[in-house]
Amino acid sequence: METIKTNRRMLGARFLAIAVLMLLTIPVMAQKRQFTLEQLVYGGTEFWNYQPDYVQCQFWGDRLVRLEADEAVLIQDEKGQEQSRRLFGDTEIEAIGYGRSLNVMSATFPDPTKPWALVYTSKGVVLYDWEAKTAVWKQERIPGTQEFCYASRSTAYVKGHNLFVRTADGRDLQVSTDGSRVLVYGQSVHRDEFGITKGLFWSPKGNLLAFYRMDQSMVTDYPQVDIALPNLEGEDSSRVARLVPDKYPMAGETSHKVTVGVFNPATGSTVYLQAGDPTDRYFTNIAWSPDEKTVYMIELPRSQDKAELVAYDARTGARQRVLYTETNPKYVHPEHPIQFLPWDATKFIYWSERDGYNHLYLFDVEKGELRQLTSGSFVVTDVLGFNTKSKSIIIASREASPVKVNYWSVDIKSGKRVMLDGGQGVHSGMLSAGGAYIFDRWSSPSVIRRYDCLDVARPEKARTLKDCDDPWAAFDVPEISGGTIKAADGVTDLYYRLVKPTGFDPAKKYPAVVYVYGGPHARNVDEARNWGARGWEIYMAQLGYVVFVLDNRGSSERGFEFESATFRHLGDEEMRDQIKGVEFLKSLPYVDADRLGVHGWSFGGFMTTNLMITYPDVFKVGVAGGPVIDWRYYEVMYGERYMDTPQENPEGYESTSLIRKAGNLKGRLQIIIGYNDPTCVPQHSFAFLKACAEAGTQPDFFAYPNEGHNMAGHNYEHLHERITRYFEDHLK
Amino acid sequence: METIKTNRRMLGARFLAIAVLMLLTIPVMAQKRQFTLEQLVYGGTEFWNYQPDYVQCQFWGDRLVRLEADEAVLIQDEKGQEQSRRLFGDTEIEAIGYGRSLNVMSATFPDPTKPWALVYTSKGVVLYDWEAKTAVWKQERIPGTQEFCYASRSTAYVKGHNLFVRTADGRDLQVSTDGSRVLVYGQSVHRDEFGITKGLFWSPKGNLLAFYRMDQSMVTDYPQVDIALPNLEGEDSSRVARLVPDKYPMAGETSHKVTVGVFNPATGSTVYLQAGDPTDRYFTNIAWSPDEKTVYMIELPRSQDKAELVAYDARTGARQRVLYTETNPKYVHPEHPIQFLPWDATKFIYWSERDGYNHLYLFDVEKGELRQLTSGSFVVTDVLGFNTKSKSIIIASREASPVKVNYWSVDIKSGKRVMLDGGQGVHSGMLSAGGAYIFDRWSSPSVIRRYDCLDVARPEKARTLKDCDDPWAAFDVPEISGGTIKAADGVTDLYYRLVKPTGFDPAKKYPAVVYVYGGPHARNVDEARNWGARGWEIYMAQLGYVVFVLDNRGSSERGFEFESATFRHLGDEEMRDQIKGVEFLKSLPYVDADRLGVHGWSFGGFMTTNLMITYPDVFKVGVAGGPVIDWRYYEVMYGERYMDTPQENPEGYESTSLIRKAGNLKGRLQIIIGYNDPTCVPQHSFAFLKACAEAGTQPDFFAYPNEGHNMAGHNYEHLHERITRYFEDHLK
Repeated sequence: METIKTNRRMLGARFLAIAVLMLLTIPVMAQKRQFTLEQLVYGGTEFWNYQPDYVQCQFWGDRLVRLEADEAVLIQDEKGQEQSRRLFGDTEIEAIGYGRSLNVMSATFPDPTKPWALVYTSKGVVLYDWEAKTAVWKQERIPGTQEFCYASRSTAYVKGHNLFVRTADGRDLQVSTDGSRVLVYGQSVHRDEFGITKGLFWSPKGNLLAFYRMDQSMVTDYPQVDIALPNLEGEDSSRVARLVPDKYPMAGETSHKVTVGVFNPATGSTVYLQAGDPTDRYFTNIAWSPDEKTVYMIELPRSQDKAELVAYDARTGARQRVLYTETNPKYVHPEHPIQFLPWDATKFIYWSERDGYNHLYLFDVEKGELRQLTSGSFVVTDVLGFNTKSKSIIIASREASPVKVNYWSVDIKSGKRVMLDGGQGVHSGMLSAGGAYIFDRWSSPSVIRRYDCLDVARPEKARTLKDCDDPWAAFDVPEISGGTIKAADGVTDLYYRLVKPTGFDPAKKYPAVVYVYGGPHARNVDEARNWGARGWEIYMAQLGYVVFVLDNRGSSERGFEFESATFRHLGDEEMRDQIKGVEFLKSLPYVDADRLGVHGWSFGGFMTTNLMITYPDVFKVGVAGGPVIDWRYYEVMYGERYMDTPQENPEGYESTSLIRKAGNLKGRLQIIIGYNDPTCVPQHSFAFLKACAEAGTQPDFFAYPNEGHNMAGHNYEHLHERITRYFEDHLK
Repeated sequence: METIKTNRRMLGARFLAIAVLMLLTIPVMAQKRQFTLEQLVYGGTEFWNYQPDYVQCQFWGDRLVRLEADEAVLIQDEKGQEQSRRLFGDTEIEAIGYGRSLNVMSATFPDPTKPWALVYTSKGVVLYDWEAKTAVWKQERIPGTQEFCYASRSTAYVKGHNLFVRTADGRDLQVSTDGSRVLVYGQSVHRDEFGITKGLFWSPKGNLLAFYRMDQSMVTDYPQVDIALPNLEGEDSSRVARLVPDKYPMAGETSHKVTVGVFNPATGSTVYLQAGDPTDRYFTNIAWSPDEKTVYMIELPRSQDKAELVAYDARTGARQRVLYTETNPKYVHPEHPIQFLPWDATKFIYWSERDGYNHLYLFDVEKGELRQLTSGSFVVTDVLGFNTKSKSIIIASREASPVKVNYWSVDIKSGKRVMLDGGQGVHSGMLSAGGAYIFDRWSSPSVIRRYDCLDVARPEKARTLKDCDDPWAAFDVPEISGGTIKAADGVTDLYYRLVKPTGFDPAKKYPAVVYVYGGPHARNVDEARNWGARGWEIYMAQLGYVVFVLDNRGSSERGFEFESATFRHLGDEEMRDQIKGVEFLKSLPYVDADRLGVHGWSFGGFMTTNLMITYPDVFKVGVAGGPVIDWRYYEVMYGERYMDTPQENPEGYESTSLIRKAGNLKGRLQIIIGYNDPTCVPQHSFAFLKACAEAGTQPDFFAYPNEGHNMAGHNYEHLHERITRYFEDHLK
């Protein structure tokens, strides 16, 4: 059942495609097509032509609006009744005379009670009233980092390293004057760890602005070099490569100092939260009380073995009290700010891993912790929001299976959980303002991609908005399956994905490539479409490789013990588990045990390099991207969480360093980096190359100038051509 | 005939080797050995064991002294009579109580009339009297850049960027106080072009010191990055890679400013030569008049189309007069300071290419040019010195053949030339103080290495000091030959070297690798041992490759027209000539035209990359080391000489840039650089990699951290293993 009309332009293309397919299928009888790399890999120019249809919706209160590039259409009312009413489009927006309409897909509906949409034009942002066909409010575009508050229509923004606020009526208030490359205002801090993604936090009504200030003058610069020369012929500036220094605190070295300010646009004054000496401390998960009187932070010492939830007076900056303290001899890892119940400003939700899994706890601002809301051997992965009617919290969790993500409503009073989505596949969605409906996008090994609108009160009444056709139906797609093996500890179940070669012949022997990440905070195997296989895996299958992917201990969303088994010796347990995967691979009669390869990026590059030199007789070929080579060169926040400092754990750093093992390399290993990688700085790979030259081993190497930790756009495709060629050169 | 006894330690080794060889040869009958890479390639630990014997001699006046690690032995007296008298050794030097004796091979005999040797101990330098067995004079070691003057026994030296003089009696005089990384005293300037190798020039008697001062504050820094972390465990300093900025003036950009000072140790005062505004000028080839009153320089404007020989008053710095001016619409390239006749302080020798070949001219300090001393279609390559008795100048030249270097005496009065060495091979030697004898080291395709003592007055009476055994006698050495083909102009003879595969079978088809340099100021083919073949060529021959080396137009010591055929469009004519070489290669019945490779370094890396993308169907595999990719990224002095500035020659720079041609790459190309290359900065190769990624081509790449333009020691061997592997991977 498909209730959403397909974009007209796409229909034309589809018709043509069907016609061509008919022509093709009649003479050759089910001869299926082979993919090109650019059809499978992000960055390839054809990639988007072979992805499932994309549907964009937004809630307007509890009403659902479908957004296309050129128009917004109401498709469901607040009672769940199907509608099909065009609200507005490009023409109407442009009629107000404030520039060309940009993509309507980015429209939002901030006020459930008003026919207003925030839309973007070539001039700026417009609060558009589609009934009156007027601009309720508009403001010119502000470039760069910014945070808009709908309630006050103020925008906090960073310009020339300093922080400003533009008020609803267009006045600019300057918040800081001493901003610089080393004194950073309004940006994400602590290298985006602890769930931090931004540095500007408006209070609920927009009367106050909390912001981060980071002093990194004491941090050593990493000398990044920009060789990009956009104007080769231009003689007005030097052609010489430029230094682009980047403050990079390495594990055990001097770190930056963060403070939190609160700016009051009404008075123009700023107070700083009186948190004490910021040296070697992390100020994370900033949240506002609904009444704007209190700012909450979760504070950690550099050791990360303690987290304190602390309240501050937003007007004076005075430290009020510690509401909760959690400790763990390994680490505490808060990533979610507290969230207040919409119907009770005295109570909030707190996330904690203290029972071994990320679960939710109910707190009272005065009495502290009230009770645990969710529990069990699974993790909560998301809080979508609250249903104000039923007084329940809508969450996503892995309760149905470690490889699924499903929605549940949790009754705040009783803790009773109700599954909302049928329990299949991996879901990601959006809750309506009142919490009555979920706009749900999901897939499973048997569902390509589906968009549903779920009714939280009546889960059985889910409405399917679009059940996407398989964009690969005409292609010879390899067999992809999932399963479990036992970890090296003999007890833990590990989930794998197995991609068989296209045109699989069980009598043949195929080379096999292990794709690996293996680090904390990520995972690869899920019961989503194709078991989560990446396009490159399909491409390799087409070239006649078996591809195997295993989420070893240390990877995410399996609980604290599973993740922290690797504490203070990153790589060791992860590799032991991957070797279990190799044993499984070798047990498959169609896998050629003499032709095993391995590939991974970032932590996966660390794993790949590590596997090549720790188990030199297992893998013949490896391609390691953006690898960590020595945790002493990695940054403070992530590195010390999992490894402690080099001073505290010298033997752990020494034994996990790949530099000392460079002489073990036997097979063919290519290391590939973004030459301007700010995450795993080039020093990692260059130190390894130096060690290999000294030890007489011969890794291969490539660097993409002006690329960071991951390749962008076209270079991502170029990279995968490169990776593929290496296996074709040496593993076939 | 061998008159020099072989070092005792080596004799032992040789005896053992002979014994082993006998054991080997009896059962297997002339089964010859194969080389390992480290036996053939500099940097390999065994390399020196398979080089011809090394003999070190020095003249003491016109007497010849053989130097060994531990002793000095007089082997010929001033009348040419054979002697064998031990002068001194380690024991005697150490008996003076001034530290352990260092290698006696570095001893010199500065005074023909005294039994004195300058020798070095672990403490410093000693002027040792071997008859009195005492130190006539001694001084502690000074580290770093320095220039010693025997006459005054003063040492000029650089310490902490500033210039000092240490007098014979040990006083330190400070010459400069404002030295820094950007204000450089006493070092070589103009990036070692124009024959400049140093920055300190003592006057003949050591009463005055001329020195270079280079202000490079206006030059853009190239951001070199040092990733070397010598003390990985040390927590006292940062582990973060360090910036090592290097002032690098790129073609067409702002260059440095050089001035020349003259310091008087007696007064402690310095005057600067009043040469006028140093902006965009080169001050080269500093020379002193015998009476120390005048300093001569050859001055060029940045355009390098003019050279002026200018005299300055050494006491006042006043510019006195221009003695000679030479212009050339392409470039003038002086590389030799003037040299005064020992018997006539009013006359000197001047080098000029003005008739198309580097020849010598006699000048009078007052009257200017007197006459041309040498002429013909050949170049003079060296002035060894003067024979004061016959009033002749002893030169080396390529008169006998463009691929030979031989000695001649030239009578100053008549210009008559007499060949001194029999006219075979390539010679390099040292003339005795009075010019009576030459200590000659030479080789030819039929002479492994020979040491002779030539009698300038009676060339036929040459005495052979050592005719070296072939260190490769037990090895299966491939056939190496030389010859000529016509250049792409159809007229010019080009010399090549051809190495056939070991165990050559004319019925087989072999892959062939072209080794190329091709740039100005260098050449590869000479009638020396093995026609000048490098060890790696022997190794490749052993692996079954034909190796071909051709000195195209543009290479050195064939005259100005030959060299400057490439002016303003480097690479084009050079490649046309190399393609002529390829046609010749393809005409050989045993060369497989489908398996051609090319390898070169520096200018040869430019040629290799250029050939791969300009003639993409000719070469299947290339390995380019430290390549120039775009002459706009090369330095001012060398670059603008051959290309003019980018402003003057935009089409030349554009058409010779490899960046625009990156998309033409079809074969396999590996680019290898020293990651800290200060000559061809890494920007060249990274810009090419970026262009290739954008164009969708796939070069391979490797970088040696902490290496410069050429690999040092062990890494040189590692590099050649790497180069070899690439051909083995893709050309076999």
